[in-house]
Amino acid sequence: MKAIKIGILGLGTVGSGVVKLLQDNAHKITNITGCELKVKTAVVRNVNAHRNVDLTGIELTNDFTKLLNDDEIEIVVEVMGTVDTAREYIKRLLQAKKHVVTANKDLIALHGPELSELAKENKCDLFYEASVAGGIPILRTIVNSFAADQVESVLGIVNGTTNFILTQMTQNGLSYAAALKLAQEKGFAEADPTNDVTGKDAAYKMIILTQFAFGKDITLDEVKLAGIDGIQLEDIKEAAQLGYTLKLLGIAKLINGKLAVSVGPVLVNNSRPLAAIQNENNAVLVTGKAVGETMFYGPGAGELPTANSVLSDIIAVTKDIVLQTTGSRFNDYSQKIEFAKANDIVYPYYLSLLTPDKAGQMLKLTEIMTQANASFKVIKQTGAANGDARISIVTHAMSEAQLNEITEKINNLAEMQLLAAYKVLEEEK
Amino acid sequence: MKAIKIGILGLGTVGSGVVKLLQDNAHKITNITGCELKVKTAVVRNVNAHRNVDLTGIELTNDFTKLLNDDEIEIVVEVMGTVDTAREYIKRLLQAKKHVVTANKDLIALHGPELSELAKENKCDLFYEASVAGGIPILRTIVNSFAADQVESVLGIVNGTTNFILTQMTQNGLSYAAALKLAQEKGFAEADPTNDVTGKDAAYKMIILTQFAFGKDITLDEVKLAGIDGIQLEDIKEAAQLGYTLKLLGIAKLINGKLAVSVGPVLVNNSRPLAAIQNENNAVLVTGKAVGETMFYGPGAGELPTANSVLSDIIAVTKDIVLQTTGSRFNDYSQKIEFAKANDIVYPYYLSLLTPDKAGQMLKLTEIMTQANASFKVIKQTGAANGDARISIVTHAMSEAQLNEITEKINNLAEMQLLAAYKVLEEEK
Repeated sequence: MKAIKIGILGLGTVGSGVVKLLQDNAHKITNITGCELKVKTAVVRNVNAHRNVDLTGIELTNDFTKLLNDDEIEIVVEVMGTVDTAREYIKRLLQAKKHVVTANKDLIALHGPELSELAKENKCDLFYEASVAGGIPILRTIVNSFAADQVESVLGIVNGTTNFILTQMTQNGLSYAAALKLAQEKGFAEADPTNDVTGKDAAYKMIILTQFAFGKDITLDEVKLAGIDGIQLEDIKEAAQLGYTLKLLGIAKLINGKLAVSVGPVLVNNSRPLAAIQNENNAVLVTGKAVGETMFYGPGAGELPTANSVLSDIIAVTKDIVLQTTGSRFNDYSQKIEFAKANDIVYPYYLSLLTPDKAGQMLKLTEIMTQANASFKVIKQTGAANGDARISIVTHAMSEAQLNEITEKINNLAEMQLLAAYKVLEEEK
Repeated sequence: MKAIKIGILGLGTVGSGVVKLLQDNAHKITNITGCELKVKTAVVRNVNAHRNVDLTGIELTNDFTKLLNDDEIEIVVEVMGTVDTAREYIKRLLQAKKHVVTANKDLIALHGPELSELAKENKCDLFYEASVAGGIPILRTIVNSFAADQVESVLGIVNGTTNFILTQMTQNGLSYAAALKLAQEKGFAEADPTNDVTGKDAAYKMIILTQFAFGKDITLDEVKLAGIDGIQLEDIKEAAQLGYTLKLLGIAKLINGKLAVSVGPVLVNNSRPLAAIQNENNAVLVTGKAVGETMFYGPGAGELPTANSVLSDIIAVTKDIVLQTTGSRFNDYSQKIEFAKANDIVYPYYLSLLTPDKAGQMLKLTEIMTQANASFKVIKQTGAANGDARISIVTHAMSEAQLNEITEKINNLAEMQLLAAYKVLEEEK
């Protein structure tokens, strides 16, 4: 039987999970691939650190070149994180004709095209299923099952940390600060949660999803980005009363053949399955012209779910090695496609405003809306503290250009404050 | 550029959809595969029938041997239905070294192992993604993404007709007969709905899912089978009051390493996403030891969703032709595994009973339950017509052996009638 030796960069949570799954499921993996897969070497910072996994037969080293120069090692799993060092290591590994599996979304979002090109030149596989939505096999599914379809949109909850925070605020009435603290205590948020709560992590995932669904490489500054760090509990409660749940959604969508990609808070109509995705779970909706709406749901992170996605990549590489077909890109679809303009990107919006509770304020607001040719679906005024009134609006669909006009005019009014302007995802037609 | 010629057996709904998608997405398919895919010949019963698709350049014939003997045709799509003729044709096609893609679940459930073996012998691909859950790419996902995991259960709504009927009964209070009639009017149920409403169609799909998830070939008589043809609206209403939605579920599950496969009505706790899957949609939950619970949701049937799954198979074959790697089984996983016994298969149950509204009846019932060592979670008595009382029970988990004992004893009581005994799927722990 062919034996395939594996190297691992990093033995943190995911790395340990990979070692564990390879041990636990060795029999099944051999049954499927006809090969024996064994981790030979792990490169770690501290070889003496205690690790919660059986490392018998695995050489631990802090010397990357030991792995790099070992001709026996055919597949390397990069789960060390970082961007620059990982990029450098992976380039050298590919040049040394080693196949690479990585879970590093930042790296792939920033340098995926360059690394994929290098892999192809060296007839190596470079797979990264675990980089998006943890345990949900969304990338390979898009490659395999939407190949003959035209994807119209990919949208979803692709960051478990923010979904946990929003779920806690929605279900238990926690403030943003209290929900963030709970997420940190439970290990769902890092000590520095910036990348998650600003939406940057979700944006990286949308960059990768966009490449797979639409065949276009985009950069972070081409994603219209908003986070949840400014979310008020008031708006979540108001949304609930109106029949919506606030979610941080990534949306990549074709509009008249042009692409718009955004990450931001969205009010999701409660009739949609997406509204019910709770806590650290992820869900990705892929709508194809032929197939219609499909949804893929599962754990967005965690040791074993993420390790399982890494393993599915390792098995895909193994099959390619056996069949001598390595060197195909993970996603071979590419097309030229322009970005949609602010005039084309049309959604209903939820607006919330604070204004002194006195005559004439609603008139000013309706004048602004009318000038922008925008119309209300729901408008609701309630009392607020200090003699103020709080106005909540759900608009009919309008363009980003209209929204910008309205926002600017409201901001120019001394007595009216725009608290929130979120997209709305209405029920499915 | 390499041109690949395709033959089609049958130009009904799905066949026409395949022709249409190949035309509409020719550019993208070429972009991905580097090949030009063209339908050359379609074998149909009536070459003169009107068809709602552009057939320019496609030869229509009622002579199967014309396709069989055409060396130019490399891939054949079987969407003609039937079991015996389709089996015979596919055998001859594989022997003639043609790759086959089929959407025929009855055929694959009954003769999949034989045909897969024959395909392998002839170094041909035989794919059938469209045979289960229409537009949901569940089979290839299990092959690719659960390869390194141990699947613990595969369960879900795999028949759109019955889910449509149950949704209409639940949401609009239709009787079973009225809901079935509506399904037939809307084209979701056939004139003879037997295969759908008895659960047989779902059982065929569970046979195929069991092969993929657990690597075991099973037969129809090894699936514990119940349909929805005896469902009473009363029980659906009662379930709703107790917080459950009645669904026809296929369940294939490992219990202490042994397999149990069933199809039947199940009360699904409303907190589960599965309870919200409506009308003709399908959803499959796959729970892996490592990855946890994942769910795949989408349209369960329909011209274009099903055709899209056929196309994903055609593209997979094309890639294999280009890479010269045809002849691998669709699913290469197999294991020896026993069936679980009635003592091991444990669920909570919903029971509904009719009894004269007089003293002592509840005592008899509780005696029977106690003798079987079974206990109640909920018990509820309401008045019924003709001086009868209706009793609804949700039990704690008990084995099929206990259920059988209880059922037999109740059936032996002259004055008590067991109306329903359905499994209960409680909220996720």
